[in-house]
Amino acid sequence: MDRPKQRGRGRPPKCIDGRLETRQALVRAGVVALTERGFALTGIDDVLTRVGVPKGSFYYYFASKEAFGAALIDSYATYFDRKLDRWLGDRRRPPLLRVRDFMDDARLGMARHGYRRGCLVGNLGQEMASLPESFRARLIEVLHGWQARLQRCLEEAREVGDLAADHDCAQLASFFWIGWEGAVLRAKLERRAAPLDCFAEGFLALLGMAGSVSEQSRFIQEE
Amino acid sequence: MDRPKQRGRGRPPKCIDGRLETRQALVRAGVVALTERGFALTGIDDVLTRVGVPKGSFYYYFASKEAFGAALIDSYATYFDRKLDRWLGDRRRPPLLRVRDFMDDARLGMARHGYRRGCLVGNLGQEMASLPESFRARLIEVLHGWQARLQRCLEEAREVGDLAADHDCAQLASFFWIGWEGAVLRAKLERRAAPLDCFAEGFLALLGMAGSVSEQSRFIQEE
Repeated sequence: MDRPKQRGRGRPPKCIDGRLETRQALVRAGVVALTERGFALTGIDDVLTRVGVPKGSFYYYFASKEAFGAALIDSYATYFDRKLDRWLGDRRRPPLLRVRDFMDDARLGMARHGYRRGCLVGNLGQEMASLPESFRARLIEVLHGWQARLQRCLEEAREVGDLAADHDCAQLASFFWIGWEGAVLRAKLERRAAPLDCFAEGFLALLGMAGSVSEQSRFIQEE
Repeated sequence: MDRPKQRGRGRPPKCIDGRLETRQALVRAGVVALTERGFALTGIDDVLTRVGVPKGSFYYYFASKEAFGAALIDSYATYFDRKLDRWLGDRRRPPLLRVRDFMDDARLGMARHGYRRGCLVGNLGQEMASLPESFRARLIEVLHGWQARLQRCLEEAREVGDLAADHDCAQLASFFWIGWEGAVLRAKLERRAAPLDCFAEGFLALLGMAGSVSEQSRFIQEE
């Protein structure tokens, strides 16, 4: 490859500490690999090659593949928490529309990457049988964080009367993430958005928002 | 290992053709491995060792690991189609209770194997990025078969008035399998039945059967 060996792809250096920058580039490449192929099939050598870091220097940055994996989960969790805060915490929008906004955004994200990239947490959850046991509690914790964010948004909807008072927001939020991971898995398998739309439609029906797949979604589906 | 080298575990020979028996034993062991760890992490050597077939004789039975994988998908599909026909086609039971029966049975199955074994089709779907491309259409086809069976059961429920007339049974059946795969994934991650119960409860609510998690399920959960 012609690209410089010490640099992440296409980004100019942003900090004076080259080590930190290299570490960040390794994490970025690792997260992409994990969303596409999961942990077991992600070779350290592939990640190093992709980033342009010489083979053998991996252990300068991470004590082990397990430590690397833990850093990738943390990085993805931070990224995804922010994404959820942005969509589900957007007080300019009615709470239930924020849920739809998040789903529309996720849909666009999957389409942008040709449905090759799924959810890092879902991928690792699926291959947990062969992963370091330390990952299990962390993955569950990350999912609970997502669940708490959705629960708060649904509670807001209930408070303003957009969601019937007898809905159990904790149960609904838990239900959402269980099913949404299934929808992401299926969209990867089918390489199309239909499973995301199907789950979105069913979930919104459960909230009492039947027939609420957004116009944006319909437009994208027809492309 | 002390066990006989040409025999599946713990089963007396059932047919006079030892080759067929060995092939079946390889398929059984392969299906277990795929429900636990997926395709990429299933080593042919491990399967041969488990069955007690000498290394090197694999290609006598299967042309390639891909051919073996295809045989495992077919075997699992046959097994699961029968299971669904048994539960969802049980005309002695009201149609919506059959759906609950299936979920209860799946729940027992996962508990019996310590939540280590998930769905072979879900596992392979998750790792599709690294699988032979020929598996994709077959996995989608298998899921559509499951969906058709559930759709028929839901249509029966609608015909007898147990499901409101405005329900779209095809959409509900599609929604179920998308979310159920997510629930199985999550139950494996958490090593407990709660995600299956949560999804079951939400799905039954969507059918208008709120609060319908069976007594049997509740009992198991408290154990």
